[in-house]
Amino acid sequence: MAVESTARMRIPETMRAWALFGPGDLRPVRKPVPRPGPAEVLVKIEAVAICGTDLEILRKGLPAMIEGGSPFNGEHVIGHEYVGTVAALGPAVDEFDVGDRVVVEIHAGCGRCERCRHGAYTSCLNYSYRAKGHRANGFTTDGGFAEYAVNHVNTVFPLPDHIPFDEATLVVTAGTSIYGLDVLGGLIAGESLLVIGPGPIGLMTVACGKALGAEVILAGTREARLRLGRELGADHVVNVRDQPLVEAVRTLTPRGLGVDLVMECSGAPEAVNQAVHCAKRGGRICLAAFSNDLVALDAAHLVRNNLYLYGIRGEGHGATKRGLALMAQGKISGRPFITHRFALDDLPRAIETFEKRIDDAIKVVVTP
Amino acid sequence: MAVESTARMRIPETMRAWALFGPGDLRPVRKPVPRPGPAEVLVKIEAVAICGTDLEILRKGLPAMIEGGSPFNGEHVIGHEYVGTVAALGPAVDEFDVGDRVVVEIHAGCGRCERCRHGAYTSCLNYSYRAKGHRANGFTTDGGFAEYAVNHVNTVFPLPDHIPFDEATLVVTAGTSIYGLDVLGGLIAGESLLVIGPGPIGLMTVACGKALGAEVILAGTREARLRLGRELGADHVVNVRDQPLVEAVRTLTPRGLGVDLVMECSGAPEAVNQAVHCAKRGGRICLAAFSNDLVALDAAHLVRNNLYLYGIRGEGHGATKRGLALMAQGKISGRPFITHRFALDDLPRAIETFEKRIDDAIKVVVTP
Amino acid sequence: MAVESTARMRIPETMRAWALFGPGDLRPVRKPVPRPGPAEVLVKIEAVAICGTDLEILRKGLPAMIEGGSPFNGEHVIGHEYVGTVAALGPAVDEFDVGDRVVVEIHAGCGRCERCRHGAYTSCLNYSYRAKGHRANGFTTDGGFAEYAVNHVNTVFPLPDHIPFDEATLVVTAGTSIYGLDVLGGLIAGESLLVIGPGPIGLMTVACGKALGAEVILAGTREARLRLGRELGADHVVNVRDQPLVEAVRTLTPRGLGVDLVMECSGAPEAVNQAVHCAKRGGRICLAAFSNDLVALDAAHLVRNNLYLYGIRGEGHGATKRGLALMAQGKISGRPFITHRFALDDLPRAIETFEKRIDDAIKVVVTP
Amino acid sequence: MAVESTARMRIPETMRAWALFGPGDLRPVRKPVPRPGPAEVLVKIEAVAICGTDLEILRKGLPAMIEGGSPFNGEHVIGHEYVGTVAALGPAVDEFDVGDRVVVEIHAGCGRCERCRHGAYTSCLNYSYRAKGHRANGFTTDGGFAEYAVNHVNTVFPLPDHIPFDEATLVVTAGTSIYGLDVLGGLIAGESLLVIGPGPIGLMTVACGKALGAEVILAGTREARLRLGRELGADHVVNVRDQPLVEAVRTLTPRGLGVDLVMECSGAPEAVNQAVHCAKRGGRICLAAFSNDLVALDAAHLVRNNLYLYGIRGEGHGATKRGLALMAQGKISGRPFITHRFALDDLPRAIETFEKRIDDAIKVVVTP
Repeated sequence: MAVESTARMRIPETMRAWALFGPGDLRPVRKPVPRPGPAEVLVKIEAVAICGTDLEILRKGLPAMIEGGSPFNGEHVIGHEYVGTVAALGPAVDEFDVGDRVVVEIHAGCGRCERCRHGAYTSCLNYSYRAKGHRANGFTTDGGFAEYAVNHVNTVFPLPDHIPFDEATLVVTAGTSIYGLDVLGGLIAGESLLVIGPGPIGLMTVACGKALGAEVILAGTREARLRLGRELGADHVVNVRDQPLVEAVRTLTPRGLGVDLVMECSGAPEAVNQAVHCAKRGGRICLAAFSNDLVALDAAHLVRNNLYLYGIRGEGHGATKRGLALMAQGKISGRPFITHRFALDDLPRAIETFEKRIDDAIKVVVTP
Repeated sequence: MAVESTARMRIPETMRAWALFGPGDLRPVRKPVPRPGPAEVLVKIEAVAICGTDLEILRKGLPAMIEGGSPFNGEHVIGHEYVGTVAALGPAVDEFDVGDRVVVEIHAGCGRCERCRHGAYTSCLNYSYRAKGHRANGFTTDGGFAEYAVNHVNTVFPLPDHIPFDEATLVVTAGTSIYGLDVLGGLIAGESLLVIGPGPIGLMTVACGKALGAEVILAGTREARLRLGRELGADHVVNVRDQPLVEAVRTLTPRGLGVDLVMECSGAPEAVNQAVHCAKRGGRICLAAFSNDLVALDAAHLVRNNLYLYGIRGEGHGATKRGLALMAQGKISGRPFITHRFALDDLPRAIETFEKRIDDAIKVVVTP
Repeated sequence: MAVESTARMRIPETMRAWALFGPGDLRPVRKPVPRPGPAEVLVKIEAVAICGTDLEILRKGLPAMIEGGSPFNGEHVIGHEYVGTVAALGPAVDEFDVGDRVVVEIHAGCGRCERCRHGAYTSCLNYSYRAKGHRANGFTTDGGFAEYAVNHVNTVFPLPDHIPFDEATLVVTAGTSIYGLDVLGGLIAGESLLVIGPGPIGLMTVACGKALGAEVILAGTREARLRLGRELGADHVVNVRDQPLVEAVRTLTPRGLGVDLVMECSGAPEAVNQAVHCAKRGGRICLAAFSNDLVALDAAHLVRNNLYLYGIRGEGHGATKRGLALMAQGKISGRPFITHRFALDDLPRAIETFEKRIDDAIKVVVTP
Repeated sequence: MAVESTARMRIPETMRAWALFGPGDLRPVRKPVPRPGPAEVLVKIEAVAICGTDLEILRKGLPAMIEGGSPFNGEHVIGHEYVGTVAALGPAVDEFDVGDRVVVEIHAGCGRCERCRHGAYTSCLNYSYRAKGHRANGFTTDGGFAEYAVNHVNTVFPLPDHIPFDEATLVVTAGTSIYGLDVLGGLIAGESLLVIGPGPIGLMTVACGKALGAEVILAGTREARLRLGRELGADHVVNVRDQPLVEAVRTLTPRGLGVDLVMECSGAPEAVNQAVHCAKRGGRICLAAFSNDLVALDAAHLVRNNLYLYGIRGEGHGATKRGLALMAQGKISGRPFITHRFALDDLPRAIETFEKRIDDAIKVVVTP
């Protein structure tokens, strides 16, 4: 017998989902449709995009494991860039109605550690501690490669009708970009911004940076991606195969002083130190990607030049809501990012397309 | 004939000073007493402390050279931790009277670059550009190992009568500590703070951290310094010869989460990465010292844990004034830092005592 | 049969409490001892101080009523400045042990509105909405004039053994002072601070301002209170019966420019405009008290002088924890504030003493 | 004989200008062309817009008089919204070249008071003190109703060729809007913003708010202006003749909670208190205009709802540069604001047109 929501939508007892059985071992399963608890809603998933982090978890597990152990348990569902429709409401939830189109963000903090209490929910000190309320869907709790998912109301935002579901999957990406830009200064109109790495987050940072009025330089190695960066508004692009990055940035900036702000989105080990040397004295650098290797850093340069280096985790400071607002106003769009679409049943092929960048894949969207 | 100040003090035409003639080559000279221009005062120096940076410049010159070239010109005077008495006023200066006891801070920005205009004067983009107004006495303009120095009014603060001149030389040190603590959060009462490196800045950061209500852990290798740190109020001290730093800090903090804030004052190459791993998720790390080597950094740890890493240059944000206020109220004191005193004519011996830490020297003060 | 806690403490089924039956009508009742839910603890109350706001609620009810209606229901318990011992833990609570000595703060936000999510829990948009998780003990949920109370773990802090319970009731007061000082700048060492109104919050703001290194002027009308302010460290006191406030402050500040910061703690209708005129250009004013009347404000003066005026609700930004840290370090103390002590059964006489300021009452503490 | 600039431009010895001879008494005069000093440039004025503040000064003088007395001295030139071409450089100026197209901002602080040193140059404590370096062209030093003016380099920004001079006069207006929006939060994408008063600053705030991604409500009384506001992007307009403002705003916002942010640009005495009641709990209100009367304020509402009220003076925080960047990128434009153009010799008729709003005048631009 199916669960009855408080309103109209009929919800089955079980659903299709893809579960992790081991490193790289993703299999289709049937799982019970989860039930929303207090302050939660059930989301019927309409589209989900594949993110590089999904591959990390698929291959290696998680930096912070799900409570009680490994995600390779035949149950854990990954996928965190999803959108959908509210299908059912938990007790005392009046923020949404069944049928509402919504986008989600990843992190619901525990709400009871000192970080959460001060608004830094992506830095929750009870990360992965489900019993204390923490959720990071697709990381520590079930995610979006399934027909349904449960979300804390804090992680759900109304999606205007004029934004198609597939394009809206990019709101999560925009959340990371905006969080970085917020940490770097917030009001960045008129500042110079270097974006390193034209992957989805880097390209979206170009789009968001332009939407907010910055002057943007994009650096990378792949011409096709740099070209897209230019279409997204980058004022300058630098192919670091042609010219050393630091030299190129100094050439592009007045008096060779470097840029005000840097977003490092490549994860290349040498990029951190290059980022630091591309910044103007008194500038700020944000790391939104990372290599697992130790990186060599000229820390003296940080001190002598009063530089600030920010690591950011996810999409804090309400950045998802801000990214959604920019998309709703047409200042950014998910469309240029989506190169491929697959059905949920075709997830392995979707992942392969994304991972191997088949046909220059940027964002691959999966729909049920 | 001597210059007549607007008021009472008689000023000679020339003065004793120590000038740099080459790397490590400091010689006594007679120089004209400088004349204060607009927005400047002449300070009769009453005491000057030796700082590690003085040795850097003495041996190697400057990261940002004085305008027009090398400091090894037979004229440049180093020394930046000085205090004294206002001896003469430049045109339209009414902020001070001749005879006022004063402490100084180092950086007077140009006032016309975008950093200065936004208050970030230690990050001046016209660093060392004297014609545009920049001064960093002892670095790019003449400093305090002399009988007189000229200071921009922005770098002069009234010294209450009850603070002896020699103790007041530590106000400049406190300025760096306070700037770091300001960048780390400002209101740090109730936060946990790790200070790495019990040199003068590290020890002063312990004192300032305690004055502002933080819980302080001090880490270092020398027992005598750690003992002094405890006398200055450190709640815990860690001798890293006995126990690995990260392990020790995790043991000392609830749930092994690490500290909220870290001030790295040792300049040891491995300290940056250790500092990062001693911080709690969502914490902040300030680098107030540096090694000239590249350091190995776990940048992934920064990103995963939303850590912020701040390089600070000098004593920005009005930190000198704040340090002076704490000293005037008896919340910090320069006295425990001063181990040796010499006459100005004995400067070489004073420097040797400081450099070789003869008799456990911490701060060595020189008086005319 | 009594509830058994997870640990040692035996808890009765019912307790003594004082309930509101109508405006001004407070009566002793027996109530069931409440049970802590998820993320909650049960606190055995050891001391509770009377606050001016208690009288407001006692006489007039609440600005934001408890859910479902009036507090004059024969059940509602007021009193929010209490301290005690943890008597029982809710499910999945491991932050505390039974037997822990604790202080409390007032506001537990819903954790799910946009204000709470960004750390502004005293501005919760679901104020008084119990089903969504909001609690403000003594305001919208039961408070401390009773033997037990339930608190969300976010509102409980460990109390060191060396602070007596009665003195610790002042931590809540310090929370408001510190919140105000945080909003005004946080790192206020070396700034000039005017405190208007020597009631408990004003006097505690003097103590906290001095602990953090500000130069403090206290203004009021009652000589005894001003004298206590001076004992708590005020650098200057102004009796506004002797000299107009604005004139006095201009006389006390260099060049007659006024103070950097103002905390208005009197609630006098004319005090807001006076506060604004006592501030230096570019200064900041915090309102921690209020009159229910409209006040006349020279808004043009705010604009012309770039002044910021902050209303603060309660003890946000983790201020309670910071106040507790200052008290634990002996930088502030509750002792000078406590003039009278009564047993819980004597609550009416305790309230009368406080309200009529019998024998110069400042803080009146009630113990079970 | 004419002054020779360091470069190409020939500069006459005298120029046409309009000087103040008494309240309301503006007369054409010939004045010497001023010479730029250190850190200054001479600007050949190409266009200047009339601002409401010009009328204030013309009729009543200045809140902070020019040094030494009254502006009604037969010499003082008003006008601060001008743009032009660099005609000559002061000593050691290399930031600009002769011939550069430039926009200006108003405030050059003294650079030596504590406000300037911390970047708050519009709050300069030496306002009008010319000998200490303060300039506010058109207020305390000569302004733009003339052929030439001298500007501190801090107040000059390069104007891209594709922006016509007349449209660029609106950059100064945008500076005030952006400063307000910066104070209100900076990154305001996705926030709700109420703008009260559809004068030039209010309308420009609508345009800037939309450019930065806010949801904007504009309130006013004149239909034509509200219509223009809608064309500039306002999501909602409220004619307060039809509906009380507070009621209208509550109707337009979810749960009737009010808006996140308010910019008060009308100067109507009742608008301050209305603004406060239109803000959501925890919201922020910025006053960019003012009435000279005392206003009645519900200060209790500020405290109970944790509201912050900011007075802003002019265009601080580098806002002019940011406004110029938005204009250069086509995100805002001066064109819709300019309703009338006059020659400099016709200044009286230009002023009358602006003052009496002849033909619905919004911005009236004067060109030499």
